[in-house]
Amino acid sequence: MKKIGKGTYKTEAFPSIRAYASVVGKKEGQGPLGHEFDRIFQDMYAGESTWEKAESRIQKTVAQLALEKGKSSQENIDLIFAGDLLNQCTASAFGMRDFGIPYMGQYGACSTMVQTIIGAAFAIESGGASSCLCVTSSHFCAAERQYRYPLEYGGFRTPTAQWTVTGAGACILEPAGSGKKAADDGNGAECDKSQVVVHAVPGKIVDLGIKDANNMGAAMAPAAADTLSCFFSDTKTSPLDYDMIFTGDLGMVGGDILRRLLNKEGIYLGQRHRDCGAMIFGSDENHPCSKDCGSGGSGCGCCASVLCSHILNRMKKGSLNNVLVVATGALLSPTTSGQKESIPGIAHLIHLRNEAVG
Amino acid sequence: MKKIGKGTYKTEAFPSIRAYASVVGKKEGQGPLGHEFDRIFQDMYAGESTWEKAESRIQKTVAQLALEKGKSSQENIDLIFAGDLLNQCTASAFGMRDFGIPYMGQYGACSTMVQTIIGAAFAIESGGASSCLCVTSSHFCAAERQYRYPLEYGGFRTPTAQWTVTGAGACILEPAGSGKKAADDGNGAECDKSQVVVHAVPGKIVDLGIKDANNMGAAMAPAAADTLSCFFSDTKTSPLDYDMIFTGDLGMVGGDILRRLLNKEGIYLGQRHRDCGAMIFGSDENHPCSKDCGSGGSGCGCCASVLCSHILNRMKKGSLNNVLVVATGALLSPTTSGQKESIPGIAHLIHLRNEAVG
Repeated sequence: MKKIGKGTYKTEAFPSIRAYASVVGKKEGQGPLGHEFDRIFQDMYAGESTWEKAESRIQKTVAQLALEKGKSSQENIDLIFAGDLLNQCTASAFGMRDFGIPYMGQYGACSTMVQTIIGAAFAIESGGASSCLCVTSSHFCAAERQYRYPLEYGGFRTPTAQWTVTGAGACILEPAGSGKKAADDGNGAECDKSQVVVHAVPGKIVDLGIKDANNMGAAMAPAAADTLSCFFSDTKTSPLDYDMIFTGDLGMVGGDILRRLLNKEGIYLGQRHRDCGAMIFGSDENHPCSKDCGSGGSGCGCCASVLCSHILNRMKKGSLNNVLVVATGALLSPTTSGQKESIPGIAHLIHLRNEAVG
Repeated sequence: MKKIGKGTYKTEAFPSIRAYASVVGKKEGQGPLGHEFDRIFQDMYAGESTWEKAESRIQKTVAQLALEKGKSSQENIDLIFAGDLLNQCTASAFGMRDFGIPYMGQYGACSTMVQTIIGAAFAIESGGASSCLCVTSSHFCAAERQYRYPLEYGGFRTPTAQWTVTGAGACILEPAGSGKKAADDGNGAECDKSQVVVHAVPGKIVDLGIKDANNMGAAMAPAAADTLSCFFSDTKTSPLDYDMIFTGDLGMVGGDILRRLLNKEGIYLGQRHRDCGAMIFGSDENHPCSKDCGSGGSGCGCCASVLCSHILNRMKKGSLNNVLVVATGALLSPTTSGQKESIPGIAHLIHLRNEAVG
């Protein structure tokens, strides 16, 4: 890996996505991306006795699916990088417990999926790890009762509030070439290129003093602007050089703020920008799946499930070849909000490109 | 980096500790290691209005001290790897917020300090990062009210219970040579070698079904045994090959269990084993600092503050040249214990050696 400019890392071993999988809940399954997910749990308990255990089950399921799709097994994986939103990241610890794979717990709030991929890219680029599993999840009911109110309370939601996605995404990252076999088998019609992590930008904590925990998009947008601006400057590129720029879960409100912040710096995302949080439930107010979703979806599982379905599916098909994924996180807790602290935002970026390698 | 055996990573760029610092609370300052810490906060609030803010203050202070001691500045640091025990790892997010350095939040419960160093070692070995700051903290009052009871409740403590250390440790990791200047200046009498991370073993999650949240040592000991056994087997070495083997916070009870578990495999730690949790408050029952400490100290800040004071001080002086540090973590939360889950343990290992490099 090589650091270029102020904060961009260029990979050299071409870490590629060997396989990926996504699992979501019923509501997400009814949304516009519903047909792209590998599995939809109709029951919020996923067969478990609590929502927290359900989230671990969802995470375990998505990891198993990624292993199956990659024709890999747990013995072949060197490291797990995983995280979630629950206190002490227990959805991941309990979800990954039975795999017997060395485990590096990550916490970047809703930006965790991209952080896991950056952590895995470092491990692969070091020459040490030859296969890493990256997993992230969130669960609406578990998050709601932990961060906000008991569900039974039926708290009123503001229009800027977002809806925590019940879902998870997983991908296996390997140095270029290792994944070719899996990609070739039975996928003749699809792109014969690998989806490679070309650049990564670990984000800085940016806090402009927003205190409204019902407007996380506004708290996270400055961090996304900071990371994107750093990347374009370091690589001497502009949004026009990419097929699409996906943000994690800014939602509609935060997405608007991001575009306006970047416009001030002369960077125009325009139609190339889409937000996973705005995409997953859609914008049709009359559709049942977008009811109560306010500004859009959020949570670690939002960016994770959209990246590991729609985005990578389109790259595999070749309709997208060169994309940026900027996962955004709000590093608050109910305690810090109760203590009248503002909300620090963070945004981690990866640049994915279809490459003929291996 | 090169993977050897089943789970050990051997470094190649010789990531070295350029500088380190430790900060603790009053009780830890009165303990047997009191004279080794860089700063002792006499006030549990550290000048802040809440214990949670105090923990962020402690973390910020220890990071600034490490930068000062390393004659480094925040502009020179590529990445922060940090973590703590608070919900959503907010001690770190708020403590590191003002540095303007890209931030990778880590969660490995009390094993976090060594996890941050392993994460940093991967980033340095990748060739991408040339300087990383690793920081971890815990705070007795903040942890107590979050994990157990409000302090005012005065809950009775079992003999196997451990006392969360109020403290933090920080170190700057750089490829060999970069740190030489800082180490040379004014330290003529001390070891002219660098403290190098030679090997790292990211731990697996090990859960043997312990459910007693007042006996975390017992829950974590099997993970420490698993990691140590993997390391000795991969490197074809035995405890006799090291000057000292430090565990993070098994305490006296967990330390006994670890030694017995390893004995069964024919591995005898003997007098070479010491536990940071048992060391920090000492074993003199009549000394005020060990009052109520049960089996010993615990928390992310326990291993962090002892590593970044006593252990590295002794290496610098040359009285220790070759040590293993195995930080242990219990990946539970009050929610998982309430839901009658067992306690998954994890243990991450680094092998530190004095090397003439640079």
